Amino acid sequence: MSLLTVGTVAFDSIETPYGKVEKVIGGACTYISWAASYFTNDIRLTSIVGNDFPQDEIKQLEARGVSMEGLKVVGDGKTFFWAGKYHENMNQRDTITTDLNVLDDFDPELPNSYKDSQYVMLGNLTPDIQIRVLEQLTAPKVVALDTMNFWMDIAMDRLKEAIKKVDILTINDEEARQLSGEYSLYTAAKKIHEMGPEYLIIKKGEHGAILFHGDKMFFAPALPLAVVKDPTGAGDTFAGGFMGYLAKAGELSYDNLKTAIVYGSAMASFCVEEFSLEKMKTLTQDDINARVQKFVDMSDFSI
Amino acid sequence: MSLLTVGTVAFDSIETPYGKVEKVIGGACTYISWAASYFTNDIRLTSIVGNDFPQDEIKQLEARGVSMEGLKVVGDGKTFFWAGKYHENMNQRDTITTDLNVLDDFDPELPNSYKDSQYVMLGNLTPDIQIRVLEQLTAPKVVALDTMNFWMDIAMDRLKEAIKKVDILTINDEEARQLSGEYSLYTAAKKIHEMGPEYLIIKKGEHGAILFHGDKMFFAPALPLAVVKDPTGAGDTFAGGFMGYLAKAGELSYDNLKTAIVYGSAMASFCVEEFSLEKMKTLTQDDINARVQKFVDMSDFSI
Repeated sequence: MSLLTVGTVAFDSIETPYGKVEKVIGGACTYISWAASYFTNDIRLTSIVGNDFPQDEIKQLEARGVSMEGLKVVGDGKTFFWAGKYHENMNQRDTITTDLNVLDDFDPELPNSYKDSQYVMLGNLTPDIQIRVLEQLTAPKVVALDTMNFWMDIAMDRLKEAIKKVDILTINDEEARQLSGEYSLYTAAKKIHEMGPEYLIIKKGEHGAILFHGDKMFFAPALPLAVVKDPTGAGDTFAGGFMGYLAKAGELSYDNLKTAIVYGSAMASFCVEEFSLEKMKTLTQDDINARVQKFVDMSDFSI
Repeated sequence: MSLLTVGTVAFDSIETPYGKVEKVIGGACTYISWAASYFTNDIRLTSIVGNDFPQDEIKQLEARGVSMEGLKVVGDGKTFFWAGKYHENMNQRDTITTDLNVLDDFDPELPNSYKDSQYVMLGNLTPDIQIRVLEQLTAPKVVALDTMNFWMDIAMDRLKEAIKKVDILTINDEEARQLSGEYSLYTAAKKIHEMGPEYLIIKKGEHGAILFHGDKMFFAPALPLAVVKDPTGAGDTFAGGFMGYLAKAGELSYDNLKTAIVYGSAMASFCVEEFSLEKMKTLTQDDINARVQKFVDMSDFSI
């Protein structure tokens, strides 16, 4: 089924204990679309870049079945740029630079060919933009939204309006606590369900992810890795993997969502093994199957 | 099979966001023995208390099949006392008071009836005491050791001697990093295997536990709970549950250890729902089965 992906397309400069890269390709929508492209080939990217963005990157995504019709290229503009540094604890990072550039004026107008999109992954952006995208869709079947504490700090009311409209919300544990005002994730999930989303995915990085759906809970492990070179984009890759899987499965159900989360976790485990999109561009179906099998083995026990 | 339990028997004063209790029953060996008593009834407790320790508590353990022959009661001594305070993040706590009292002179001499113990759970104590207990055993089949960063700080060499002698090591993620000098838990596990233990269990509190065994990994979730009243003893209860299960199963294997960890996690999830041993003393087999089923449901997915 068709999958609309919305978010940033960016340049990143990244420093981690494993090295340093300058002005590599990044952005939530880039990671989401690459990850999803291993599951479905009717992806509709929605973002904005400047004239400094490499044509070759656009072609690579098109070759993966990603429509770039919704990528606005601003002729006299510069692409969104983020620079950050990770310390040994890869769960935390310092932002060095955030140059919004063309992102500052991003007001996505969906191409007509996108308006019937059935699956929608709203990457982390202002709640205003997320709502504006939803308003242009004629018959979305499944909408997932990713966000962050920043929007809770400065635009909580508008964020809650956006959240009300979605089926699946993905946030981390601290954000779930902030959004709900509850410390217990169990209780936080109950409150967040009342805000709208039938499904809540709490992402905990190296500690895995928890899916809450009514009274049901599913705990997906993260794969312990020998080397985590660069965590940038892991959450977006996770989102791309699970929405790609869901769009392929073609039905929103608790069982499908559990499997989707395992696929998302597997994709994220690849993402962090190399800088930027390096690993994400070279995967095979065998790689993915073998990685997912590790998650099966890691979760398997008998009573 | 017989299970030797070694560790503190104590009084605790505990403050958490849910309340405050004064001089309640605590201690690693107490939690371990109570939890294990739901799985096996040949438990041999080894600890020390003062004459202030309630006779009734000793009787309650005896009624659960726990031999108290190895509990040394010091006539003119006072029982080990710990006071601590938890903040909203229950993963961290401040120690207010540590009165070693009789524990200061603890030099366990095992009763003859204990020396043939087959399963051994060495709770957190000085590595000297842990080694001394092992030296008195004639034919231990499975030995598990729990320890903490404090001993890594002040007695690392002696701790490594103790670790060399055990089959199963249980520590938390920060301790695994400190012990191995590796940040990646995957790589840390490889190094710790080389130190002796064939099985490494990394306890991560609300984030679950990971079992490492050679190249194999098993990720056991923790149950998200509406209320965590008091995390004291959760790690010891986990250890008691899994060693109790293993002693009952009667064979050390990767499959048995995985199941044991799920039972341990289930027991720990009860422990934290009330202060002290309140909940641990009142469980039924049905309670345990129902709780374990939640872990099955929470881990179940299909590819």
